[in-house]
Amino acid sequence: MSRFVNVALGQLGPIQRTDSRQQVVSRLCALMREAHALGAHLIVFPELALTTFFPRWYIEDEEDINSFFEREMPSAATQPLFDLARELGMGFYLGYAELAQEQGKAVRYNTSIIVNRQGEIIGKYRKVHLPGHAEHEPWRRFQHLEKRYFTPGNHFGVTPAFGGIFGMAICNDRRWAETYRAMGLQGVEMVLIGYNTPVHNAPAPQHDDLSLFQNQLSMQAGAYQNGTWVVGVAKAGLEEGVDSIGGSCIVAPSGEVVARCITKGDEVAIARCDLDFCAIYKRTTFNFDLHRRPEAYGLLVERKGETLAADGTAVGVLNAP
Amino acid sequence: MSRFVNVALGQLGPIQRTDSRQQVVSRLCALMREAHALGAHLIVFPELALTTFFPRWYIEDEEDINSFFEREMPSAATQPLFDLARELGMGFYLGYAELAQEQGKAVRYNTSIIVNRQGEIIGKYRKVHLPGHAEHEPWRRFQHLEKRYFTPGNHFGVTPAFGGIFGMAICNDRRWAETYRAMGLQGVEMVLIGYNTPVHNAPAPQHDDLSLFQNQLSMQAGAYQNGTWVVGVAKAGLEEGVDSIGGSCIVAPSGEVVARCITKGDEVAIARCDLDFCAIYKRTTFNFDLHRRPEAYGLLVERKGETLAADGTAVGVLNAP
Repeated sequence: MSRFVNVALGQLGPIQRTDSRQQVVSRLCALMREAHALGAHLIVFPELALTTFFPRWYIEDEEDINSFFEREMPSAATQPLFDLARELGMGFYLGYAELAQEQGKAVRYNTSIIVNRQGEIIGKYRKVHLPGHAEHEPWRRFQHLEKRYFTPGNHFGVTPAFGGIFGMAICNDRRWAETYRAMGLQGVEMVLIGYNTPVHNAPAPQHDDLSLFQNQLSMQAGAYQNGTWVVGVAKAGLEEGVDSIGGSCIVAPSGEVVARCITKGDEVAIARCDLDFCAIYKRTTFNFDLHRRPEAYGLLVERKGETLAADGTAVGVLNAP
Repeated sequence: MSRFVNVALGQLGPIQRTDSRQQVVSRLCALMREAHALGAHLIVFPELALTTFFPRWYIEDEEDINSFFEREMPSAATQPLFDLARELGMGFYLGYAELAQEQGKAVRYNTSIIVNRQGEIIGKYRKVHLPGHAEHEPWRRFQHLEKRYFTPGNHFGVTPAFGGIFGMAICNDRRWAETYRAMGLQGVEMVLIGYNTPVHNAPAPQHDDLSLFQNQLSMQAGAYQNGTWVVGVAKAGLEEGVDSIGGSCIVAPSGEVVARCITKGDEVAIARCDLDFCAIYKRTTFNFDLHRRPEAYGLLVERKGETLAADGTAVGVLNAP
C-alpha cells in the first residue's frame, strides 16, 4: 500500500523589519505557486514566517512588541494565502506570533498552524521549548528573548491531515527527543517544523560551525527513532545583520535526507513522501508496544534538570547490585 | 579546565561456538595490551563479549543455555582480565550473559560492568531494551531470542569513574532516546555501549543497507542531545554464518565522531576525551533546568505504545483551541 503526499519545503530568505505583511505574504504566495507547479499537495513555511525574527531585540514598548503579532488568523493581510490554498487545492504549514485573548488577558505564543487543501485551519500548535533568555543581556551581539516574549505551550498533539497523522513542532523543539516521542506515541507519520536558527550562538560560539550539522542530526534521529517523516524549514540568510542557517530538508523514516534546499534565500524543494513507509519502522525496531520500557523512564518526567550534589557534581546512582 | 580520559574501542571480530572462554579472554587481553601501548586509561569491549551471540539459536536444553552464562564475575576464566587491568592500571567495560541467583531462583540478564584501574568492579548494568522475540520463529534465517533468554533490567544508573560520571547501555538501548536522557538527567559525561547487530534484520530486510548509518545516527543524537561522550563497540563480522556490523566509534558531545574502527575484526582505536567538553552543551542548549518541559512529556511514561482507534489508525489529538 502507498499513501503519497507531495511535500514542498517553502524556505524563506530574510525578512527585514521594514518589510510589510503584504510583501511577505506575496513571497509566500509565490513559493506556493512554485510548489504547486511541482505537484505539491502541501508546502511548509518557517517559524515566525510573517515578520523579521524580533526576539533578537530587547523591546520595552508593548505596542512595538505587539506589532509583530497576529490578532487573528486569517487576517486581511494573510487572507490571500488561504485563498490561494483553496484555489490551488494545496495545504500549508505556517508559523507566526500569536496574540491570544484568554480570560480578558492578552497572551503571546509562538504558534504554527496546518491548513488543509480547502484553505481551512485544521491544527494549531504552540511552541513548547522556548529557547534563549527572559532578561536583557547586553553582552550578547544580539538577543534571543523568546522566553520573554512568549508563553510556552504544554502539549504535543497530532492532527489527521492529508490522509495521515500529522504533527507540528517549532525550531528549538526539534533538538529535544521528547518532542518526537510524544507525537510518535500518537502515531505521527509526518512532523512539520519551522525554524529561525542564527549561525552564532552567543553562549557557545565555539560550536557555530556545527549548527547545520546538529540541526540535521536532531531531525534525522527524531525521524528514525519514531518511524516518521520530518520536514524542517528555515528562515535563512542575513536578516537585520544576523546570519541564520538554511539547511531546510525532508527526512524519511529511515533517517535519510531525501530533499534539501541549497541556498539561503526563498527556495522550494520537494519530495514525494509515502506515509506507508513509516509502518516498516513502527512495526519492527520501533514497535513501541513490544519494545519500549516506560518503567525505566520515570526520571524523564520526575526531574526537570540534573540533580547536583553540594560540590556541584552530579549525583551518581549505581545500578544493579 | 580539562579532564582527559583516553578511551580505547576494543572491537571484537566473531566468536564461534567452539571458542573457549580462555581463547576469548586471551583475545581481550591482547586488545587491552594494545590499547595500553596507545596510552588508554580504559578499554570498552562489546555486548556478550565472552561467547558467540547465542540468541540466534532456539535452544531448549536449560544446561545448553546456561553454558553461555557466567555464574560469577570474575571467574577462573575471566580472572586474567582483571589481573591485567590491575597490572596495567587500566579500566575496562565488559558485556556478558549473567546467571544471577535471586531468592533461590536463577535469573538471566544481559549485563555489563565497569572495572576501574585497580581491577575492581565499580558499576553493573542490566540491559533494559531487549530486542527480538520470545518464541521460536522458524521463518527467520536466524533467531533473535533475547526476549526469551533474558530478564530485562529496569534502571539506567550512572557511576562515578575515571574522574567523571559514567553510564552504561547495551546494544538496542542505543536506539532509544530515553536511554541517554535518563542518564543525562543524572549528569552522565560518558556512556559506554557494547553491541551485536546482525546486518540482516529479518522483519525489515529492506533496510539492511542502512544498519551502519542508523547505528551511528542514534549514538550521535544521544551524545549531542545530552552533552555527553558516547562510546559504541561492536562484536563484528561473520559469526556462525551471521554477518554483524562493525562501525565501533567514539562520539563527542558535539555529535561528531572522533574515532572509528575500520575492520570487522579485533581492532583497537583510541581518542583522548575531555570530560569537561560536556559542560558547554550541558550549560547552554541542553541546560535541562532552563529548557526541559516535563509537563509536556507525560505520554512518555503514561503510555507504552501507540493508542490506536478501532479501525487501526492512531488516535489524533488536536492541540491548542
